[in-house]
Amino acid sequence: MTNVDLNCDLGECLDAVSIGADSEIITQVTSINVACGFHAGNHSVMHEIVRAAKHAGVAVGAHPGFPDMPGFGRRNMDMPPDELRSCILYQIGALYAILKAEGMSFQHVKPHGALYNMAAEDLEIALVIGKAIQLFDSSLIYCGLAGSQMTKAAETLDLRFSSEVFADRAYKPDGTLLPRSQPGAVIEDANEAADRVLCMVKEGWVSAADGSKVLIKADTVCIHGDNPMAGFVAMRIKTVLEAEGIALVPMAEVAR
Amino acid sequence: MTNVDLNCDLGECLDAVSIGADSEIITQVTSINVACGFHAGNHSVMHEIVRAAKHAGVAVGAHPGFPDMPGFGRRNMDMPPDELRSCILYQIGALYAILKAEGMSFQHVKPHGALYNMAAEDLEIALVIGKAIQLFDSSLIYCGLAGSQMTKAAETLDLRFSSEVFADRAYKPDGTLLPRSQPGAVIEDANEAADRVLCMVKEGWVSAADGSKVLIKADTVCIHGDNPMAGFVAMRIKTVLEAEGIALVPMAEVAR
Amino acid sequence: MTNVDLNCDLGECLDAVSIGADSEIITQVTSINVACGFHAGNHSVMHEIVRAAKHAGVAVGAHPGFPDMPGFGRRNMDMPPDELRSCILYQIGALYAILKAEGMSFQHVKPHGALYNMAAEDLEIALVIGKAIQLFDSSLIYCGLAGSQMTKAAETLDLRFSSEVFADRAYKPDGTLLPRSQPGAVIEDANEAADRVLCMVKEGWVSAADGSKVLIKADTVCIHGDNPMAGFVAMRIKTVLEAEGIALVPMAEVAR
Amino acid sequence: MTNVDLNCDLGECLDAVSIGADSEIITQVTSINVACGFHAGNHSVMHEIVRAAKHAGVAVGAHPGFPDMPGFGRRNMDMPPDELRSCILYQIGALYAILKAEGMSFQHVKPHGALYNMAAEDLEIALVIGKAIQLFDSSLIYCGLAGSQMTKAAETLDLRFSSEVFADRAYKPDGTLLPRSQPGAVIEDANEAADRVLCMVKEGWVSAADGSKVLIKADTVCIHGDNPMAGFVAMRIKTVLEAEGIALVPMAEVAR
Repeated sequence: MTNVDLNCDLGECLDAVSIGADSEIITQVTSINVACGFHAGNHSVMHEIVRAAKHAGVAVGAHPGFPDMPGFGRRNMDMPPDELRSCILYQIGALYAILKAEGMSFQHVKPHGALYNMAAEDLEIALVIGKAIQLFDSSLIYCGLAGSQMTKAAETLDLRFSSEVFADRAYKPDGTLLPRSQPGAVIEDANEAADRVLCMVKEGWVSAADGSKVLIKADTVCIHGDNPMAGFVAMRIKTVLEAEGIALVPMAEVAR
Repeated sequence: MTNVDLNCDLGECLDAVSIGADSEIITQVTSINVACGFHAGNHSVMHEIVRAAKHAGVAVGAHPGFPDMPGFGRRNMDMPPDELRSCILYQIGALYAILKAEGMSFQHVKPHGALYNMAAEDLEIALVIGKAIQLFDSSLIYCGLAGSQMTKAAETLDLRFSSEVFADRAYKPDGTLLPRSQPGAVIEDANEAADRVLCMVKEGWVSAADGSKVLIKADTVCIHGDNPMAGFVAMRIKTVLEAEGIALVPMAEVAR
Repeated sequence: MTNVDLNCDLGECLDAVSIGADSEIITQVTSINVACGFHAGNHSVMHEIVRAAKHAGVAVGAHPGFPDMPGFGRRNMDMPPDELRSCILYQIGALYAILKAEGMSFQHVKPHGALYNMAAEDLEIALVIGKAIQLFDSSLIYCGLAGSQMTKAAETLDLRFSSEVFADRAYKPDGTLLPRSQPGAVIEDANEAADRVLCMVKEGWVSAADGSKVLIKADTVCIHGDNPMAGFVAMRIKTVLEAEGIALVPMAEVAR
Repeated sequence: MTNVDLNCDLGECLDAVSIGADSEIITQVTSINVACGFHAGNHSVMHEIVRAAKHAGVAVGAHPGFPDMPGFGRRNMDMPPDELRSCILYQIGALYAILKAEGMSFQHVKPHGALYNMAAEDLEIALVIGKAIQLFDSSLIYCGLAGSQMTKAAETLDLRFSSEVFADRAYKPDGTLLPRSQPGAVIEDANEAADRVLCMVKEGWVSAADGSKVLIKADTVCIHGDNPMAGFVAMRIKTVLEAEGIALVPMAEVAR
């Protein structure tokens, strides 16, 4: 049976107000990625999010980013491989301790922002991230952009990989995302987004911006928590998928 | 056979220069306490220190502090128990990941600065720290001031405890440290410091500032790494103890 | 003619999403207090807020807090007077440079969170803050709790003071705020809040929680920007005050 | 009469120990560049350094860097011009407030680390820095690498510029520095360093790594404070220059 995961980045805040918003979307997804205090979040927010995930029965992974709060981890940083490995290990370990204290499993690691984008295109960076994951726990899932250098890095290191697709983003014919700066880059209609997800999950392809078919593997669908419509989009995807007999399950349970 | 550990706080810097100094003292001690990025240090410094410890064959523990770099973790912070637990878990986990990547064991947790002093006097705080240690790994050693509330907290939680004494500090008749602000609080003569350590380790007492005998349990002796004389003091202690047949061993191997 | 200022804390975030919310409330008030990067905010958020204030024609002041992002500056910190003065100077100067670059005036300094509460009760702390303001620019307005130690500190230092009242908080008979933990501490009805403000501004008193009359000087009314109803409350206050011929003007223009 | 300034980066630490080292070198130079809390330092360290400079009669400038403590501001950051301007303004203002509280003048702005290197080669970045200086106070001196894009930026903006040379670094024939990774990049002999400085100051040229003569303008000589030999090098330079009748004076007093 076909199934898929819905994931969302959470804890990307420093205060209780935004956590409020997070605790709504948490009930609509099957996995969450927790910011680990470098680009956003802190020990306190992380613990609250982990407790909310425990309560909601949602699987949890780390969302490590560059140490750059003012830039929200969204700008490229020139970090030596050695330091990058330490940087990811530190963040993974920090989340692990909080999960352990709550008796919860550690499911996956999905890099954030500029780190995600750099790793999608640069095999060396993708491998450093994979190596950090492997050194910590080789049973953790590496989550990253479908068909990117992260996919290759996970294969090289023999790590389990969760191939991520975007419901609300247009794709280029080569399978990469159309930059947000380009017209049509963001799909704003929830029904269209849901239909695209259905096609990716069930048939394994997506219609690129130029109309061509792009083969794509969809293990997990990213829901943008900072979009006020996120909850609505998630519900719409859920409805459309379940009508086709596709179950929403955490990343670790997605059949490959 | 009687034995004892020498411990030192390391990685309390942000740059390579001070790490240089750390790598000298590391060869003189048997355990080190690594700053975890909240009061000092960061992922990069931590990893360098852990590698140096691996090379020197020294045991490693966490040195968590309040999130207060400008104050170097030396000022009291009014932190709710829940957050304090998250704060310690985060730091413990961060170090754990780096140790795991290097294939090294995690020996102990010794709180830093104001957190250490507050926990020495306040059982509730001492218990929150102990609980964080226990939730993470109940085989970790809790290291804290000899005869303090931390000792009680470790007993209550059935955690292994390493009783810390100071070579270069004067004691009050009740076994607490004479505040640094008072005359005679710091013992500057290395020979006198070494003789006091010998007495604490071998005979189980120390001469208080008023001349009275104070019973004290010495599992580990703190060497202040920020003292330029630290290496010399450590060597002197080593010489005096070994002349009496007392071995220097990591905290985990100290006979109780 | 009687008039009064409405002030609001802004820029207490790290990202663009929350700035969006800030730019709505900014049009409803006459003065804003900008977080300066210690308890919240950063250079980038500050600059965006200052530009929004310039566009809205709103007066700007600094909102310095303790260096404690994880605690949002809401917990007491034990900071030596010397460091506290440096801490406030640093934050004041940082905002000043951004205001200067935008050709805007610097109107006032209002401490944040725990620093505000500590200064309200402790004359020494209130004086340190006042001294920092004075050393930087003795024409700046010191803004703080009506009738508190901050009022006294400003008098002692001969600084101009803006006496702050709260529309949505209950008062004790001694003129201090009823702690949020107590029942009835927060006034949730916008009409009641507006009527209380009118009474404070026009008649100089407020009805305390026990029904007694408390004399109070209202130069500026604090609107809580983190309250989703803040805009509505501000509008209601505006309507009620203007119906009585009371003008809303920036702090610096409030007649004393 | 020919004269020249000796400058040194200070306050690049978080604790009192290193400040100790800083207070020795401070007596050997005529200008200091104070780290402003982004790549190193904080309000407290800055204030101590400023007080030490006041006591030593040394002129003070800002040493703004990227917001990157773990990387010590030494790695390139991809920062939009708008944010870079805010980032520099924030740091300049923070130092200004501390100087004002101490009744001291603000002499210059010298970018740190990666920001310095990027600005030396990229006119756009050099102009953003210059624009931030100009918006804050157009009488401040812009200090940067001799003959670099920073020189051009200062000319374009009609800012006063202090042309910096290095006593202990080899130059390429085009006047840029030989990267530290190359053999011979660092001149370790204090006498040779002093002779090179004399030649640059008195005759306006330096011998490049390939033996060719490079014209160079020397308004200020950088002394590396993190070099344990810094004090000795500074003294040697002083001796050699004064023997030739060249006075050491703060940047602002160097004849152009």
